[in-house]
Amino acid sequence: MLVLVVNAGSSSLKCQLIETDGKICLMKSLAERVGTEEATMSVSFSPDFSKQRFSMTNLTVAQCLAKLLDILVAEPDSPIRGLKDIEAIGNRIVAGGEYFSSSVIIDQNNIGDLKKCEELAPLHNPAADECILMMHEMLPHTPQVAVFDTAFHATMPPKAYMYPIPMRYYKDYHIRRYGAHGTSHRYAAQQAANLLDRPLSDLGLITCHLGNGASITAVNHGKSIDTSMGFTPLAGVMMGTRSGTIDPAIVSYIMRRDNVDYDEMDRILNKESGMLGIAGFSSDMRDILQAASDGDENAQLAVEMYIYRIQKKIGSYYAVMTRTDAVVMTAGIGENSAELRERIFAGLAHMGMILDKEKNQVIGDIGINRVVSIDDSPIKICVVTTDEEMRIARETDALVFVATMANPDFAKDYWPQESAND
Amino acid sequence: MLVLVVNAGSSSLKCQLIETDGKICLMKSLAERVGTEEATMSVSFSPDFSKQRFSMTNLTVAQCLAKLLDILVAEPDSPIRGLKDIEAIGNRIVAGGEYFSSSVIIDQNNIGDLKKCEELAPLHNPAADECILMMHEMLPHTPQVAVFDTAFHATMPPKAYMYPIPMRYYKDYHIRRYGAHGTSHRYAAQQAANLLDRPLSDLGLITCHLGNGASITAVNHGKSIDTSMGFTPLAGVMMGTRSGTIDPAIVSYIMRRDNVDYDEMDRILNKESGMLGIAGFSSDMRDILQAASDGDENAQLAVEMYIYRIQKKIGSYYAVMTRTDAVVMTAGIGENSAELRERIFAGLAHMGMILDKEKNQVIGDIGINRVVSIDDSPIKICVVTTDEEMRIARETDALVFVATMANPDFAKDYWPQESAND
Repeated sequence: MLVLVVNAGSSSLKCQLIETDGKICLMKSLAERVGTEEATMSVSFSPDFSKQRFSMTNLTVAQCLAKLLDILVAEPDSPIRGLKDIEAIGNRIVAGGEYFSSSVIIDQNNIGDLKKCEELAPLHNPAADECILMMHEMLPHTPQVAVFDTAFHATMPPKAYMYPIPMRYYKDYHIRRYGAHGTSHRYAAQQAANLLDRPLSDLGLITCHLGNGASITAVNHGKSIDTSMGFTPLAGVMMGTRSGTIDPAIVSYIMRRDNVDYDEMDRILNKESGMLGIAGFSSDMRDILQAASDGDENAQLAVEMYIYRIQKKIGSYYAVMTRTDAVVMTAGIGENSAELRERIFAGLAHMGMILDKEKNQVIGDIGINRVVSIDDSPIKICVVTTDEEMRIARETDALVFVATMANPDFAKDYWPQESAND
Repeated sequence: MLVLVVNAGSSSLKCQLIETDGKICLMKSLAERVGTEEATMSVSFSPDFSKQRFSMTNLTVAQCLAKLLDILVAEPDSPIRGLKDIEAIGNRIVAGGEYFSSSVIIDQNNIGDLKKCEELAPLHNPAADECILMMHEMLPHTPQVAVFDTAFHATMPPKAYMYPIPMRYYKDYHIRRYGAHGTSHRYAAQQAANLLDRPLSDLGLITCHLGNGASITAVNHGKSIDTSMGFTPLAGVMMGTRSGTIDPAIVSYIMRRDNVDYDEMDRILNKESGMLGIAGFSSDMRDILQAASDGDENAQLAVEMYIYRIQKKIGSYYAVMTRTDAVVMTAGIGENSAELRERIFAGLAHMGMILDKEKNQVIGDIGINRVVSIDDSPIKICVVTTDEEMRIARETDALVFVATMANPDFAKDYWPQESAND
């Protein structure tokens, strides 16, 4: 099945065309700084993936997606000749709330719930929803699947997902921990089990998804039992531009003192905080590590704070799992920064997480997962290259396959055009 | 030296008269529900401490203190005959901000900074400041000392006290982690060192002050290196009526959805949350444990959440200390609830914190500190009865003693009356 995977962010769009039968990626695209004059999109095709760059000046994320489809139809190297060649669309959705505890085929019955989840991830969900509606306009009979970042965390027990605030907020407003990056944590856990050659259901794992967004999950016997992101993706460890969890009284204190409203506070904590807030000049870990090694004290502090918060979070999950077999590092920073891995685990050797500095320095090829702890480290340290798009494509394939078995024509009218903009 | 220790809360006042030479407490008083019609104050004197109860209907905390002094002068069992018998006053202050990293004699130079700290602990500091001014009116030449709950945490490194928010908030508004319960954590750590018969400077300790307010501190070699309370005493683990740390986006979400302002949000998170928010009927751990054992599901959930958050916090400090020698339990719940200690450590045995169930059940007398882990537990578990008032009295004695050595008449004009209300 040829699946278009759509991963829409607030100012980015990442897509892949994946042939799920052979597990082959045929096209990759990445649009960045979307919504600005400098927005561009790189598009590349298998087998060599040499990038072509297209201007995306002043378009929305959904408009970038429409333009990508035009490019795919027009480009001679493209694997598709017409839009009908796309058999299904898999959409990554950050927040599914309590409405969605697993991936679903999007239809007229659940599109309303999807819209309700927008306020849980105001930076991400709205852009994804716009892409879904745009694709529904362009390809009304192509099934679309929503794969939720939160679904993997549906197994958390109440003691982990409830907040110590008045119960009415849970009952009436569904305020609870939902977590995020679920697709990535699930995949990282499974890959670690493969690396360790043991069944996932036997293992206690701490998976660290460290990208521009970051979250850490306690995966006990294959199930998420706790995760650092919370009601929204603002919570947890320090991130590129997000504060992570802080004393909630700081929110009201700044509002009172600066006379700013809650929207502005959300923006400050989501867009101006984290590594950017401390380092001052960038949210990009590579830039900040470089500046730190050049002697920039704010950059050094930002890196120390980042490492420290990850160490504390690993410790807290170590405490609540009866056994930890491995810590798994994944996503941009987790996979690629040997320096950060070394510094994080330098402080955790006393817990039995002992890095092999040489193995840690080996730069992994994409798709090559590896163990980077010493052979007799009581707790293993794994590096797993995340492949969120492949997982989304495979979940999409499976759901559409099942629906087609039940009714081969289900996609013809599963989601009438007129309901799309309800 | 006869020291009056004043511990003022938002709706309570706890005082002791302590003779520091013999380390003897001569009088104890406790006013509760201050500000209401039902407010009463119990007063008792050594040696038998049989309580007399006085009505305090509709008085402020400071007015209760004035009334206590009247009682002390009038009561035949009282150790004092006149107010001049009180040689010094030791005031417990919750928040000292970055203005105060140790206890100080209050004078005209620092009273302004003391007022500035009120917004850091709006439930506690204003009442304490009012008591200081009231005592200054009644006893203008009696030295007053401020002992800060935050001072012990002045040794935290920047990676622990800085928040991942824009740097301007630290530089301009001094928003950082300050912690609280410092007097208690310092005392608990020292008592644990005594129990273990090892120098405090050799030990890695995790001290858990679990009262109606609660905080956990990593004490490395005698110094606080991190603590769970933050910029304000709202942060950290779950408390009687305080939420502890939550996803900060919840604050703006509730404000937006319910159209409430930041003052109301502060009140909800400080007064309606924590154990009360989940259990619904009480913030008192004894009531909630009883209801939980009677089958109340919300009470059971509240207790599970409470235990779980403490376990996670212990784990996070275990991770960032290179060695943990003991976990120390103190304050109302930490000292008195064998059930909670058993349940907290039942989940942490895999970390080498192995409770001796029999020792744990022995109810300690006041002042009898003890080790409640099994003999060969790699990490010891200690119970220490907190004696915050004695520590405040001794710090007050020491500061006044040093000031008097430098200038025997210093108290005559150290703080002119007219500056008191600046």
